[in-house]
Amino acid sequence: MTRAARPAGKVTIAEVAQLAGVSKGSVSLAMNDKPGVSAATRRKVREAARELGWLPNQAARSLSSATTQVSNVGLVIARPARMLGLEPFYMEFVSGIESVLAERSHSLLLRLVRDVAEEIDVLDGWSRSRQISGSVMVDFTLDDPRVAAVAALGLPVIAVGHPDLTGGLPSVWTDDAAAVTEAARYLAALGHRRLARVAGPARLGHTALRSEAFTRAIADLNLEPARILTTDFSGEQGARATRALLSSARRPTAILYDNDIMAVAGLSVATEMGVPVPAELSLLAWDDSQLCRLTHPPLSAMSHDVFAFGAEVTRRLMDLVGRGETEHGPAPTPVLVPRGTTARAR
Amino acid sequence: MTRAARPAGKVTIAEVAQLAGVSKGSVSLAMNDKPGVSAATRRKVREAARELGWLPNQAARSLSSATTQVSNVGLVIARPARMLGLEPFYMEFVSGIESVLAERSHSLLLRLVRDVAEEIDVLDGWSRSRQISGSVMVDFTLDDPRVAAVAALGLPVIAVGHPDLTGGLPSVWTDDAAAVTEAARYLAALGHRRLARVAGPARLGHTALRSEAFTRAIADLNLEPARILTTDFSGEQGARATRALLSSARRPTAILYDNDIMAVAGLSVATEMGVPVPAELSLLAWDDSQLCRLTHPPLSAMSHDVFAFGAEVTRRLMDLVGRGETEHGPAPTPVLVPRGTTARAR
Repeated sequence: MTRAARPAGKVTIAEVAQLAGVSKGSVSLAMNDKPGVSAATRRKVREAARELGWLPNQAARSLSSATTQVSNVGLVIARPARMLGLEPFYMEFVSGIESVLAERSHSLLLRLVRDVAEEIDVLDGWSRSRQISGSVMVDFTLDDPRVAAVAALGLPVIAVGHPDLTGGLPSVWTDDAAAVTEAARYLAALGHRRLARVAGPARLGHTALRSEAFTRAIADLNLEPARILTTDFSGEQGARATRALLSSARRPTAILYDNDIMAVAGLSVATEMGVPVPAELSLLAWDDSQLCRLTHPPLSAMSHDVFAFGAEVTRRLMDLVGRGETEHGPAPTPVLVPRGTTARAR
Repeated sequence: MTRAARPAGKVTIAEVAQLAGVSKGSVSLAMNDKPGVSAATRRKVREAARELGWLPNQAARSLSSATTQVSNVGLVIARPARMLGLEPFYMEFVSGIESVLAERSHSLLLRLVRDVAEEIDVLDGWSRSRQISGSVMVDFTLDDPRVAAVAALGLPVIAVGHPDLTGGLPSVWTDDAAAVTEAARYLAALGHRRLARVAGPARLGHTALRSEAFTRAIADLNLEPARILTTDFSGEQGARATRALLSSARRPTAILYDNDIMAVAGLSVATEMGVPVPAELSLLAWDDSQLCRLTHPPLSAMSHDVFAFGAEVTRRLMDLVGRGETEHGPAPTPVLVPRGTTARAR
């Protein structure tokens, strides 16, 4: 199938050097990922080696790979695999991470686990076997056991979460409390008195922070007490929560969702139940993926560039790995983008 | 911040063994990923080591990590990072891969690249540094240069693509030609005479295979010649293509989309342009993520369980890595699932 049919052992480094048009020393440097040869030479050498079916001496490779600077970045997510595919957030976040890693020829080592105990074991194993040079950590909970564990590992990490949750780890977060307060104020200014929120899982720290800020804002604005329904972030549970809210005796006139897929589902439920949006019901999504611009009417959203957020998190991790320090602080606060699903209350 | 303030060098293996309540031999086995200790013991030992801030002897670790069986699986995707986050397909596919890897405590090494030349370099580098034991390859094109390159590398791979494209590599594919033919026949049986297709990028092999089968089916069914518009798979381009089709003099009465996000966008465009679905226009999506069930009306689709597909691809790769051989053949053909967006032509 290829030209490599001839036994690989019979090929010499001199032949590879000749085919690539470089010295034997350059072949060695290129094949062992050492500095001192250009990217173009490295590519020519690898192509020649592949063409001849040549591999450097096995023992030398072991030695060399043990001392090679590892530059993978880890990401462990404790979430059921089926759920992960359903939320636009993670794919945009991972894409943002990859956009920065790709510039530096780094890769992402991705793992799904059942719980944080398993996550700690995975980070420990990756760190000890030096498969990663640092890790991004997500989904912090109150009193998260991972904080002490990764500090003990000495592994560079960037925690995606509010400092109230990440216990001193270098952190990046969005000011969700400010954003949720802005959303409640805007809906109140449009004359809405009965708000509701379709939230993420209660165990997640950022859900708790948003719920607390939402409840406080409702009280400060003298609105009717607001219902908060928690979900698993899926469209199905978003649809179910919306049906429950719209079937209740005193149905809300405005609903804030914790992600975009649930808001899309909520808009469909309103259509299915004959509740005109935005005439009788305002809907506000969170995160603002392209989905929000594809519905009819397009969804108003608390817009958060998740791709840029993933990229920023990764740039900070690269700083931490390379220089031992990085900027510590929030990413831009989500911004309210009114589109077709929010209007004055009747 | 942690109890590891005491210099790590002063801690002995005996202290770790004592804290974990196991023998020194068990500590060694557990910390070096050797068989012979239970998962519970391994966890206890690692917790004790972390608590004491103990690391096994550095030289021993190098030796051990050099001989440790590497069990990461690679996936390189040549697509702009921004695009990746927009399509539900990849996240569901990656989730399916992770579902199988997680069962075996394996991780996915993920990398975005600009082109196939860079992809070959990445696979070469991963393979030589033994960071992966095998790889999943996607997005095959006609005369794909990766086929000969990975064969020369000797790296176990599963190619996701039709054997016409993957040149003898172990492959998994869906019979897209059969599915697209079924879709055309169904729409013809509903009385539609003017079909159109909003397709993916022309450079992708599976787009070409679908286009060929679609054109042949239209001819066999004696329907009017069908327009095929190619896109980058994004909702925006799906919306634009749908606007173009619905603005044309002889607009189609049925449109088949190459993914789900473009079908969602198409449905919104029909609503925006006042074309009732399904009364005057039938729409058929592909892949059938949860999105298709969240629109109103819900989208009819050529249903393909992408999560299960990713899992099957990974199981075959694990066979190939473990036993040196695997089953070769198609995954289940996408099945037509009629919902609310297909009806008899008027």
